[in-house]
Amino acid sequence: MIDVCLLGTGGTVPLPNRYLTSLYVRWNGHAVLVDCGEGTQIAMNRMCLSGKQIDTILLTHFHADHTAGLPGLLLTMAKQERTEPITIIGPKGLKEIMQGVLIIARYVPFDICLREITGNTSVFSLFDMEVTAFSLRHSVPTYGYRMELKRSRRFDPEKAKKNGVPLRLWGLLQKGQQAERDGIVYTPDMVLAEERKGISLVYATDTRPVPYIAQYAKDADLLITEGMYGDPEKIEKAKLNRHMLMGEAASIAASANAKELWLTHYSPSMHDPLLYEEDVRAVFRNTVISKDGQMKTLKFEEK
Amino acid sequence: MIDVCLLGTGGTVPLPNRYLTSLYVRWNGHAVLVDCGEGTQIAMNRMCLSGKQIDTILLTHFHADHTAGLPGLLLTMAKQERTEPITIIGPKGLKEIMQGVLIIARYVPFDICLREITGNTSVFSLFDMEVTAFSLRHSVPTYGYRMELKRSRRFDPEKAKKNGVPLRLWGLLQKGQQAERDGIVYTPDMVLAEERKGISLVYATDTRPVPYIAQYAKDADLLITEGMYGDPEKIEKAKLNRHMLMGEAASIAASANAKELWLTHYSPSMHDPLLYEEDVRAVFRNTVISKDGQMKTLKFEEK
Repeated sequence: MIDVCLLGTGGTVPLPNRYLTSLYVRWNGHAVLVDCGEGTQIAMNRMCLSGKQIDTILLTHFHADHTAGLPGLLLTMAKQERTEPITIIGPKGLKEIMQGVLIIARYVPFDICLREITGNTSVFSLFDMEVTAFSLRHSVPTYGYRMELKRSRRFDPEKAKKNGVPLRLWGLLQKGQQAERDGIVYTPDMVLAEERKGISLVYATDTRPVPYIAQYAKDADLLITEGMYGDPEKIEKAKLNRHMLMGEAASIAASANAKELWLTHYSPSMHDPLLYEEDVRAVFRNTVISKDGQMKTLKFEEK
Repeated sequence: MIDVCLLGTGGTVPLPNRYLTSLYVRWNGHAVLVDCGEGTQIAMNRMCLSGKQIDTILLTHFHADHTAGLPGLLLTMAKQERTEPITIIGPKGLKEIMQGVLIIARYVPFDICLREITGNTSVFSLFDMEVTAFSLRHSVPTYGYRMELKRSRRFDPEKAKKNGVPLRLWGLLQKGQQAERDGIVYTPDMVLAEERKGISLVYATDTRPVPYIAQYAKDADLLITEGMYGDPEKIEKAKLNRHMLMGEAASIAASANAKELWLTHYSPSMHDPLLYEEDVRAVFRNTVISKDGQMKTLKFEEK
C-alpha cells in the first residue's frame, strides 16, 4: 500500500492556510517528496511527517514555488543528524538549481545525488516503486510522475499440479525463475495465477492539458493535477501562463479512467476553490477539491 | 512613530505555530524587513503586512533560518508588479548569498541593490531613519542593528525673541540653517528648544551576550534579542553554538536601561518559552516572552 499526503494546495505564493503544493508519498519504509516549495517543511511538521524516511525528492520543474523549500528542508534533515544520502531528481538544470540551494543551505553534511531527466519520458526504479517521468507543457521544462507499485502474482498450486510441475521446482518458479528437468522447461507462468493490478499514483502539475497526461494516468488509482483556475473565463490566462482550468483537469481524469482526481495548486486569487466542485464533478464525478493535508492510503485491490 | 511587528519567534527551524524570527519595521511610508527566513512571506501575509512598502532588507547573517525566505519574497514582490528597486544590506558575503537566491528565484524584474557591511560598526541612513550596524559574536559574521528616528527640535518663539533674532530669519533658522545680518551670526540654537529624545529600536540575534550590545541598546525604547534557551543549564550549549540564554539577554536589557525587551528566536526544543517568564522578569522586569505577530507602535515621548 501507499500512503499519500498532499502537504499543500497552493500555487505560486504560499498563504497562511494554503501551503504550496507538495506531495509526500510513503510505502514499505521509504518515502518520496514530490516538489518542495517554501514552507514545505512546516507543512510536513504540521502533518507529523518526518523527513527522515525521505530517500528521494522528485522535482517537476524549477519555478521557486516548487523548489524554494529545499535549503530549509535539507538543513532540518541535517539537524536530525541524517547521514544517509538523498537523491534529487528533476529536469535538466537541476545541478545549477542545486548550486543555488547549497549556497543558501551551506552546511549539508550528507551526500546529495543528483539525477537529471532528459527526453520526453524516463523510467526508473525507486526501490520497489517504478517511476515514469513524462514531460508536460509548461513555460519551462516540466515533468509529471507516474509512480507504480507492482503486485506480485499469487502462487497457484492447482495450476502447478495441472501443468505437471515437479513439487521440488515450485519454490524456484514462484520466485520467477525457470527450470529444466528431464528435457522439459518449466516457467513461472506454469505456477503463478493471473497478473494482478498494482497501485498507481500520478502527479501532474504545472501544465496545459496535453492529451498524453491521460495516457500516463491510465487507470490510475489516484491522479493529482493542478486546478489553477476554477472559472472557465480564465482560459486565456491559463493558456498564457501554461496552467490548467479545473474542468480541463477533470476531462483528463475522465479520459484516463482514473479512479479519483485530486485538484491542487490553486491560484492565490481563487479564495474558495470549493465553489467549482459541482461543475467539475459534472465532468468527472470522483473529483476532490483538495485541502491542505489531504491524506489517503492506496491499497491493492482485494483478490 | 514606528510600527514594529515581530513576524515570528522561531530559531533554526520554522514550526507550524512558530515562524522564523523576522522583524517588520514601518514608519513614515517606509518599511524595513530585518531577516527573512523560510516562511517570512507567509507570516507577513498572516499579519496583513504588504511587501510593497519594504524599501530595505537588513540581514543579520547568512544562516538559512535568516535568509531562505528571500527567493519567495522577492518573487511575490515581482508578482505584485513591483518596479521600485530594493536594497539588501548584510555582512560581507551578501553578494554570494544573493547569487544563490537569484538562481532559485530566477525572474526578478526590479533592481536589487546590495550593500555589504564591513568592520565592527557602520552607520547609514534609510531615509529619515539612522541605522547603526554593530558586529555580534556568533559562529559566522553577524550584525545587530540599532534603528533610530531622530526627533526635530521644537521652535521656541520666546527664545528667538530673547536672543533678538529678527522675525524674518525665524523660518530659516528653524530649518537648521544659520544666517548673518548686519554682522551678527544667527544660529538654529537661538530659536530651537532643547533636544528631544527620538525613538530607538535595537535588534540583536544571533549572538553571545557581549557587553557592547548594551552600549548600542542604551536607553532603547525596544530591544529585541534572541532567547534561544530558557533553562540556565543550557549554558554550555549556548556557548558552543554562540547563542544566548534568556537570562543573559535580560541582563543586557538591564545594563542598557532599555524600556522593554522582547525575547525571540526560541530553540525548537523549547516547547513553552513562557515557563521562564518569571525568572527573566526577576532580572529585567519589562521582558516580554514574545509570540508570533507581536506588535507595538513606538511613539515619541509626550512633551
